[in-house]
Amino acid sequence: MTLLDQTLQKIEAVDAGWIRKAEARQLELTKPPGSLGRLEEVANRCAAIFQSLSFTVSRPRLVLFAGDHGVCAEGVSPYPPEVTAQMVLNFLNGGAAINCLARTCGVEMAVVDVGVAQSLPAVSGLVRRRVAAGTRNFCAGPAMTSDEVHAAVQVGIEMADEAVADGCELLGFGEMGIGNTTAASALAAALTGLPPSAVIGRGAGADDVCLARKLSAVERALALHAGHLSRPMDMLARIGGLEIAAICGFCLGAAANRRPVLTDGFIATAGAALAVRMHSAVGDYLFASHGSVEPGHAHLLALIGQRPLLDLQMRLGEGTGAALAMKLVQASVAAFTEMTTFTSAGVSDAGQPLVSI
Amino acid sequence: MTLLDQTLQKIEAVDAGWIRKAEARQLELTKPPGSLGRLEEVANRCAAIFQSLSFTVSRPRLVLFAGDHGVCAEGVSPYPPEVTAQMVLNFLNGGAAINCLARTCGVEMAVVDVGVAQSLPAVSGLVRRRVAAGTRNFCAGPAMTSDEVHAAVQVGIEMADEAVADGCELLGFGEMGIGNTTAASALAAALTGLPPSAVIGRGAGADDVCLARKLSAVERALALHAGHLSRPMDMLARIGGLEIAAICGFCLGAAANRRPVLTDGFIATAGAALAVRMHSAVGDYLFASHGSVEPGHAHLLALIGQRPLLDLQMRLGEGTGAALAMKLVQASVAAFTEMTTFTSAGVSDAGQPLVSI
Repeated sequence: MTLLDQTLQKIEAVDAGWIRKAEARQLELTKPPGSLGRLEEVANRCAAIFQSLSFTVSRPRLVLFAGDHGVCAEGVSPYPPEVTAQMVLNFLNGGAAINCLARTCGVEMAVVDVGVAQSLPAVSGLVRRRVAAGTRNFCAGPAMTSDEVHAAVQVGIEMADEAVADGCELLGFGEMGIGNTTAASALAAALTGLPPSAVIGRGAGADDVCLARKLSAVERALALHAGHLSRPMDMLARIGGLEIAAICGFCLGAAANRRPVLTDGFIATAGAALAVRMHSAVGDYLFASHGSVEPGHAHLLALIGQRPLLDLQMRLGEGTGAALAMKLVQASVAAFTEMTTFTSAGVSDAGQPLVSI
Repeated sequence: MTLLDQTLQKIEAVDAGWIRKAEARQLELTKPPGSLGRLEEVANRCAAIFQSLSFTVSRPRLVLFAGDHGVCAEGVSPYPPEVTAQMVLNFLNGGAAINCLARTCGVEMAVVDVGVAQSLPAVSGLVRRRVAAGTRNFCAGPAMTSDEVHAAVQVGIEMADEAVADGCELLGFGEMGIGNTTAASALAAALTGLPPSAVIGRGAGADDVCLARKLSAVERALALHAGHLSRPMDMLARIGGLEIAAICGFCLGAAANRRPVLTDGFIATAGAALAVRMHSAVGDYLFASHGSVEPGHAHLLALIGQRPLLDLQMRLGEGTGAALAMKLVQASVAAFTEMTTFTSAGVSDAGQPLVSI
């Protein structure tokens, strides 16, 4: 049995009984009922994930998967493909946006080369798990072989397993890959059945000409691969990306290990949506960090059944939304597990007899 | 000249030239232009506040002002007034929601008794600045004397001055006071000209009977004090609260000291809106942390000209929204001041010649 099969077998839906236990506990805490709003929902679901009313979400880890895309040959991005490798080095040097946000939010990072086209130099901290030197142009044929997809998904599962083995209780993911909004758009169209024009956006900053090329590339790819886009592993092989496949695996691994896991933007959520398509219970472990301005993102969030915690008009990827939202998840859990009760604090509940101080 | 007058004289609007300098700097950072969305707006305004492209927002401090409300005699809250004092002790013992959130977000707290009705025991950490033992019932007469309002506003200014003297570069505020959504609703109606029914909500959890009493209390108060509700200091004296007056002063003090300051929910924003009414440039220093479910909050946010950073359906007060949003402000500034540039990182910008690695 493959690691993927083993992982899928381990995934269980969370028990609604634990949600109810957590809701009852919330009523005992020194705050008006429901007054922490969505933070209460987050904490209650975390309680169900950990099957406990007394748990922690310490050592948050963000895993950033990088891969290149053959579809860049179609002129779909304003940035040259070399930027993927350049940004990986930027991540490892601590100079990118995600580094700044992760430092601020106390989030540790792992940077994984799952398919960067250029050979990266030996740099401290890089997790070298390159399955292929980028995907092939999916306008001309499948992006990956079936073996490559399986290998990339397995990298994601293993990164989740490793994080959990390291004691990470809260997980998140992000991606880097020039051209990957085009792959995510193709996947979003295939997953939702919507026309490409409904899910495609400007990504890193496509102008009108570039946007027209993206739309054309996605339309041609969907036509070329029609009939092979129903199963998630086939979708990944035909029109996916190595980093997106790894993210799919990472979500499966997080769910199999019963750990809450934060999505990021449009591309990352495409990987999460594929994981939910493989096993619907994965959605019980996912928390949507932010809503991207990419038009396809809201459709993917609907597929995973999650409303984003943040709406800051971001569209950067790299796990930037996930890093910020991890702090909100930690705050929700701290409030749930550390707040005093009306009884223990000697605070009068609504309609209760007065307690003198 | 009073401290209030001195403080008002020191307040200056931020220079739009600094916003433009910050916008230009954002374009040099290793991310697609505009891709950090509202985080970029936040950082750019902070740059204008600090008049620098290289600054920090370290040592965030949340100041929590507590006061009681004579209008509780009208049966406007499901909680007995004693809960104000009980919750102050809960804050000082570290057991309330705000303590959990502040710890998670690395925010230091100051708890100020500006007008709690009950005498609080000698507890370590309490800032004892009680101006009066709560306000009087504003359905029967003015809530405060003019001297009391001035004293409470001065407490707020001094707390801002003290925080800045202590090296706090990011400020926030919150409140505790049973009955204070009723005072905030009266202030919101007076400030906006909207009917009380448009700004009143269930606060800490009023049932229909309690809500009807709130509405009646606000309507009677506005009728009783009609003709005396145009100047902010008069509004505070007639229908305000000691903690709301202190928050107004705190916003003035933050602006006078050129420090970014985070609002909290409905009641706290009423204090901020009064400060903006006193000096319109105060709005340049305010950042709206979250949008409360109290219906009057959106109207007050419009008055201070700010869109909230978070929308988590919260309605707790205590500074809970401010504490969470402080982390977002810090993240925005970290991204702005710590991210590498395309040039320094050797990353190819859009449409630029390739840089080999």
